[in-house]
Amino acid sequence: MLQDDIFKIGLIQMKCHQDSKANLSKAISGIDQAANQGAQIVCLQELFLTPYFCQVQDPSFFEHAEPIPGPTTDALAACAKKNSCVVIGSIFEKRAPGLYHNTAVVIGPDGNIIGIYRKMHIPDDPLFYEKYYFTPGDLGFKSFKTPFAEVGVLVCWDQWYPEAARLTALEGAEIIFYPTAIGWHSHEKEIYGKSQTDAWLTMHRSHSIANGIYIAAVNRTGFEKNSMGGGLEFWGNSHVLNTYGSYLHLSDSQNEEVIVSSCSRKLIEETRRNWPFFRDRRVDFYKGISSRWNSKNSI
Amino acid sequence: MLQDDIFKIGLIQMKCHQDSKANLSKAISGIDQAANQGAQIVCLQELFLTPYFCQVQDPSFFEHAEPIPGPTTDALAACAKKNSCVVIGSIFEKRAPGLYHNTAVVIGPDGNIIGIYRKMHIPDDPLFYEKYYFTPGDLGFKSFKTPFAEVGVLVCWDQWYPEAARLTALEGAEIIFYPTAIGWHSHEKEIYGKSQTDAWLTMHRSHSIANGIYIAAVNRTGFEKNSMGGGLEFWGNSHVLNTYGSYLHLSDSQNEEVIVSSCSRKLIEETRRNWPFFRDRRVDFYKGISSRWNSKNSI
Repeated sequence: MLQDDIFKIGLIQMKCHQDSKANLSKAISGIDQAANQGAQIVCLQELFLTPYFCQVQDPSFFEHAEPIPGPTTDALAACAKKNSCVVIGSIFEKRAPGLYHNTAVVIGPDGNIIGIYRKMHIPDDPLFYEKYYFTPGDLGFKSFKTPFAEVGVLVCWDQWYPEAARLTALEGAEIIFYPTAIGWHSHEKEIYGKSQTDAWLTMHRSHSIANGIYIAAVNRTGFEKNSMGGGLEFWGNSHVLNTYGSYLHLSDSQNEEVIVSSCSRKLIEETRRNWPFFRDRRVDFYKGISSRWNSKNSI
Repeated sequence: MLQDDIFKIGLIQMKCHQDSKANLSKAISGIDQAANQGAQIVCLQELFLTPYFCQVQDPSFFEHAEPIPGPTTDALAACAKKNSCVVIGSIFEKRAPGLYHNTAVVIGPDGNIIGIYRKMHIPDDPLFYEKYYFTPGDLGFKSFKTPFAEVGVLVCWDQWYPEAARLTALEGAEIIFYPTAIGWHSHEKEIYGKSQTDAWLTMHRSHSIANGIYIAAVNRTGFEKNSMGGGLEFWGNSHVLNTYGSYLHLSDSQNEEVIVSSCSRKLIEETRRNWPFFRDRRVDFYKGISSRWNSKNSI
C-alpha cells in the first residue's frame, strides 16, 4: 500500500514560553515551514504547549490539561489539513476528572485523528515529577498507518526502554518518533552533562540498530526556571537516525530549528537483510522479560 | 554475600593460529598475566582454541568439538585454580554425536565448573556459517554467582539483542561478558567498516546504560584466511564499559592485549538510583516481546 520509497519527516525543536498561544503559533509556523520543505510527517516536542510544568508539583497546572479532541488537537488538525501532512502532537490529556495522561496524537493529512499513544513509562525524579500528573498509559505500544509511512510514537522516558522500541517495531513501525523534554540540572551539567546527553543519544542509536528502523527524537531547548528558584536547561540535540544508527541530522543544544530529513523504505529492507536480527530472535526464551526481577538471590 | 565493592576483571584479546595447542598456551599465559595484575574474573574470546572455522561449511571441522568437561576445560580449570581466579572460556561443545553448541564455561577459582551458557542467538551470514555447526542454546539466559561478582555471559551475535542483555541483568548479573569473533569482510571494510564497528560498540554501550550494568566484550584480532580464498579481518576493539556506557577500556583493532579493569559494585547501585529504569518497566505490557511479529498488516 505504501509504494513510494522515500518519505520525508519534520521535527520542530523550540523554546517554550509562558504564553501557550504563542507556543502553539510557533509550533504551527514550524509545521508550515517543514511542510513547505517537503515534510510529510511532522512531529512536535513533548508538551510543546507549555513550559515543562512537571518541575514542580502544583495542582493548578492541571488546568493545562485538555480533552482529545480538544482545542489544541483541533488547531493541529487544521494545520495538518492545510499542509496535507501528518502531524504528531504531544498533549497533556484530560481523560476524566482526576485522570490525566501524557499523550501523543497522530493526525492525518485530512485532519482526522488516526490514533493516540499514551506514554507508558512515567518518570519521577527531581524536577521531573511526572507521576504526580500522568497516569501511565493503558494502550500499549502501537504503530499507526499513515499515507506516508507506518509510524510509531514513544515519549521521552520510554526512550530508555529497549522493550518499548522493540514492541513498536514489531507492530510494523518504519520510524519511531520520540517527542521529548530532557535537560540538564544546572548543578550537574559540568560534571555529568556530556555523559548524560551521550547516553541519551546512544540509546536512540541502539533502538535504530537493533530494529533496523528510523528514529526521530525532538527535544525542547532553552532554560526554564521553576517557582522553587531552580530550573532545567533543555538540551535540544534533536536528531534523525537512519536504519543503522547513523545521524541524518543532529541539532545543537541551544537553538530553535525546523528539521527536515528524507527516509528510504528500501533501506529498511536492505539493512534488515544484511543484519537479520529479526530472523533469529529467541521468542521461545523471552518470557522472563515480563517479570519484574528474576534473580534467584531475592524473593 | 559479595561484600567487596571492587572486583577486577581481565580480557585476553588475541590472534588465533592453526595450532590449537599454541592458542591454548597463549590464552593461559594471558590469564596468568591478567591474574598477576589483580584480575579476579578473566574472559577469553569466542572459540579461542582455533581459527574462526565457521567461515566455511566443512564437516571435518566438527573434529574441533569436545565435551564439557573435556581437555580444554580441564586446562582452563587448572589455570583458574593456580591463579585463584574465575575463568570464562568459550568452547565448541560436543554434547552428543550430531549435537554441538557454542558454549561458554564459567570455572570457579577452585577449578570447578560453576555453570555453562549455550549461545542462544546463532548467526548465519556469508563467512559466519554458524547455523551449520551450532544448535541454538536451550538453557536460556543466566547469571552465575562467583566469589567475586554475579556474572552473566552472552556470546557474539547475542550482542545485537536487547532482550538477551535485559534477561541476563534481570537474573542478577552485575557484569555481562561477551566472548566475540566479529570482523570485517575485506571488500566491505572501506565503505562499511567504520559504521559496522561503531554500531557494535553502540549496542554494547546501550546494554550498559539500559541495565545499569558493567559490560566486557572480548574480540579476536588478526586476519584469518579461509579455504575459499577470502578471509575475515577480526576487528579487536575489546572493551569494558561502566554502568552508564562509558569506556573503562577500549583496545585497538590490530594488537593482542591483556586487559585488566576495575568495577565497583557501589556504582551499580548509584547508577540505578539516579536512572531508575528498573522501577518503571511496564511488565504488564511486554508480552508481545515473545511474538515473532505483531503487525496487523501481515498474517
